[in-house]
Amino acid sequence: MTLIKVGIIGIGNMGSSHAKLLIDGKIEGATLKAICDPNQEQLNVISRYSSGNVQTYLDEEAFLNESGIDAILISTPHYDHPNLAIKAFSKGMHVLIEKPAGVYTKDVAEMNKAAKESGKVYSIMYNQRTNPIYQKLRSLIQSGELGEIKRTNWIITDWYRSQSYYDSSEWRAIWQGEGGGVLLNQAPHQLDLWQWTTGLMPKRVHAFCHNGKYHDIEVEDDITAYVEYENGATGVFITSTGEAPGTNRFEIVGDRGKMVVENNKLSFYRLTQSEREFNATYKGGFGSPECWTIDIPINGNSTDHQGIIQNWIDSILKGTPLLAPGEEGIKGLEISNAIYLSSWLNEPVELPIDADLFYEKLQEKINQSTFQKKNVTKMTLDVSGTH
Amino acid sequence: MTLIKVGIIGIGNMGSSHAKLLIDGKIEGATLKAICDPNQEQLNVISRYSSGNVQTYLDEEAFLNESGIDAILISTPHYDHPNLAIKAFSKGMHVLIEKPAGVYTKDVAEMNKAAKESGKVYSIMYNQRTNPIYQKLRSLIQSGELGEIKRTNWIITDWYRSQSYYDSSEWRAIWQGEGGGVLLNQAPHQLDLWQWTTGLMPKRVHAFCHNGKYHDIEVEDDITAYVEYENGATGVFITSTGEAPGTNRFEIVGDRGKMVVENNKLSFYRLTQSEREFNATYKGGFGSPECWTIDIPINGNSTDHQGIIQNWIDSILKGTPLLAPGEEGIKGLEISNAIYLSSWLNEPVELPIDADLFYEKLQEKINQSTFQKKNVTKMTLDVSGTH
Repeated sequence: MTLIKVGIIGIGNMGSSHAKLLIDGKIEGATLKAICDPNQEQLNVISRYSSGNVQTYLDEEAFLNESGIDAILISTPHYDHPNLAIKAFSKGMHVLIEKPAGVYTKDVAEMNKAAKESGKVYSIMYNQRTNPIYQKLRSLIQSGELGEIKRTNWIITDWYRSQSYYDSSEWRAIWQGEGGGVLLNQAPHQLDLWQWTTGLMPKRVHAFCHNGKYHDIEVEDDITAYVEYENGATGVFITSTGEAPGTNRFEIVGDRGKMVVENNKLSFYRLTQSEREFNATYKGGFGSPECWTIDIPINGNSTDHQGIIQNWIDSILKGTPLLAPGEEGIKGLEISNAIYLSSWLNEPVELPIDADLFYEKLQEKINQSTFQKKNVTKMTLDVSGTH
Repeated sequence: MTLIKVGIIGIGNMGSSHAKLLIDGKIEGATLKAICDPNQEQLNVISRYSSGNVQTYLDEEAFLNESGIDAILISTPHYDHPNLAIKAFSKGMHVLIEKPAGVYTKDVAEMNKAAKESGKVYSIMYNQRTNPIYQKLRSLIQSGELGEIKRTNWIITDWYRSQSYYDSSEWRAIWQGEGGGVLLNQAPHQLDLWQWTTGLMPKRVHAFCHNGKYHDIEVEDDITAYVEYENGATGVFITSTGEAPGTNRFEIVGDRGKMVVENNKLSFYRLTQSEREFNATYKGGFGSPECWTIDIPINGNSTDHQGIIQNWIDSILKGTPLLAPGEEGIKGLEISNAIYLSSWLNEPVELPIDADLFYEKLQEKINQSTFQKKNVTKMTLDVSGTH
């Protein structure tokens, strides 16, 4: 059987973890051929882990031109994803990018264009799409069980990070290095699932970001965003890395009831008739439609990062449909960019946002920065079970 | 034993219910002496229920001057509460007002002043303060168990009302008649408990109100409010009468964990150390403080409206401390007024709000109204178990 020769660029927390999956033979149909990182020590760790069976590159151009890989997994700092993916597509490689797709939609749109022109298999590490609970939620909503959506609400504050996490890399949590905080690093999963499960993108966003509220960092670690959808529904998205223990509760209200995902459980509060219909016909004053409380059975387990990598390889080898097509990375990022922009301008913004204005405002943040990172420890963290 | 002679003005849904409690002898130390309402039929219903033992008045002045009552329970439309209370205090009566205290803080402040000058016992129908779950929550927070508060979140959408509810009275759900919608009629309980349990009033409010979204009404039936507190904490308050089944979930996050009230259960996710301390000292990158999940035992039952009326009578007769002092009604109303004002101005507002500006904007709403109420049925609804 053909083995897809995979290369990984960016051997930090996530890249190291992905490399080990491949070295350990967890991905059928693929082999790790080469890795690239500007930090020799990071390369050495993985090289030793592979017993010297993986080529190492400090230089990006050499990695891209000489390693002979078929497919590239990009797990560099976020800013570099689009640029690297575009280069890889031009060399005929299949591409899997870590989330977020990038820092601003302007260059992610270019990456999507390059992907389309290349015809290569392009995926994004939305590993939480492998969670059967969100797959079931999506399928119920898309099948019309919930009726027209009225309100969404996601409190996703269980992304707790201590100061030592932010001190683990120089690029983290500064505008120039990472381009954002919890919204760009941790919450992209939920920003994606929010739109993926409901099938709805916000039309208008009004958001409130707080920078360095709980940590000595330049970017935001606490956010509340209010959104409005085209059909008049509203929504709230709350995220933070400063709360312990956090909450992860996603509530979606529709004309036919309510669905709540919390504590790995999907509850469906199902009306026996449409609320709009009840409202129009009921004559009793107080009273509400009959409601059944249902625990929706969830089958299977999250296959997580391994599942996304395997799906990408299967798509390359066998044409398996992608669970997380790379082109869809722009959706969560568009919401993320809108949240920042609204907070920076202190006014509501409409989607699609003015991508040039966002880019300009982000450059202002970078150029006006006076933040100095202290106590950088440069450690590679064990991410098992955390993302 | 002395019996306090109580009069009730406003014999609608709530007034009728309170009258029956008194007639049924459910309130120790009090007797219902007189009732007043401009609608003869409403008076007749209660008069028959009392076997003719209660005096009835169509005229407010006669009721206040000739009925010989010691204490007045005011359950008229909201606008009239301050005016009637001020008159009653001037005649030496004790006063219990239905919630909300009024429609705008301007005249509620005057009512509070009159109450203070009179020295009479002045309470407000915040019957949900009798719920032992909120009493326990308050006592835990006030004792410091939760540490400094970081975030509050109340989704209180289980105030479902159908169109027929709004059609039951002419004054309901129009700016001129009621002065507001879900925020002024249903949610005042939670607006009060939000500040009463936490001991925090918001400093800044940014809110989004939707008028007549789910019903043929002039006022709001769907609201999302974002608030900021003096200490930097944030909060969200969501309410609606258009969702079925609704949610009633109150989450408070502090430095020492999280408390959640939902489904008549108080859960305390208690950290074994301060999160701020952990953040400053932990060196492991990923990781969070140890957390214990505790079901807080709740003893006793809500005594509800009966409890508030009894407490008011006990305070008159025996000096028992009030659970819901009338003076505190202005707090929830101040938040409510701020939410409207922010939504009307489409900008954040600081608390205390500009009470004159709010009054002026409300008059504009009233004067510019072109809304016509249709299908008014004028029915008195059975409110048992609904408020």
